[in-house]
Amino acid sequence: MPPDTWLSKINWSEDGLIPVIAQEADSGKILMVAWMNRDALKLTVEKREAVYWSRSRKKLWHKGEESGHTQKVKEIYLDCDQDVLLLMVEQTGGIACHTGRHSCFFQKLEGAEWVTVAPVIKDPDEIYTQ
Amino acid sequence: MPPDTWLSKINWSEDGLIPVIAQEADSGKILMVAWMNRDALKLTVEKREAVYWSRSRKKLWHKGEESGHTQKVKEIYLDCDQDVLLLMVEQTGGIACHTGRHSCFFQKLEGAEWVTVAPVIKDPDEIYTQ
Repeated sequence: MPPDTWLSKINWSEDGLIPVIAQEADSGKILMVAWMNRDALKLTVEKREAVYWSRSRKKLWHKGEESGHTQKVKEIYLDCDQDVLLLMVEQTGGIACHTGRHSCFFQKLEGAEWVTVAPVIKDPDEIYTQ
Repeated sequence: MPPDTWLSKINWSEDGLIPVIAQEADSGKILMVAWMNRDALKLTVEKREAVYWSRSRKKLWHKGEESGHTQKVKEIYLDCDQDVLLLMVEQTGGIACHTGRHSCFFQKLEGAEWVTVAPVIKDPDEIYTQ
């Protein structure tokens, strides 16, 4: 089998991207959703650390390159339509969100309001010092 | 507060959609990813059952309307960028995937191959009889 057949199985978007869910392997907590292109996914597999494609900065983004909060990738899953990836990860530092929280999903709908239900573990100013 | 302020907090895509992760509340298993528009999300909150927007059929899709495999919605979360939703659900029948599997994420990357790692619980021909 040619080495990149597994990459071609993916239904990449018109922009050549796929959304990626990062789930904490131990807790089952969903940490974040980001995007990958082919290069990002290849690098993720090679490094066994999450490398995403930053749509805002339009470049590869080795998660944790600034913050140190890398994600060790234990397992990678693809859904039935081949258009969403799921990474089972170990989150270094226990912080995935740029707000300094464990998970990006910290706003919970209560009645007709989004309520912040998770604490900031570390001030972002201390995380991103450069 | 006007009743729909919580809907306006969401960063809807240009198409007026947002991706939605359905996670099984008890097991922590990620079941599927689908899409919602404003109407779908409002109906989901009203019914406390997942109503998605089918991009292929271009209509509201009350999950389980044909299969009986509805999703009771326990909690709804929004991420830090306000552009991904997370539903904590109870999956009726234990089958979320149209292939008859528990979860849509049943293909696991092993070396350079996607390997099917979850069984078909019920034949789709028996699920979708109409």
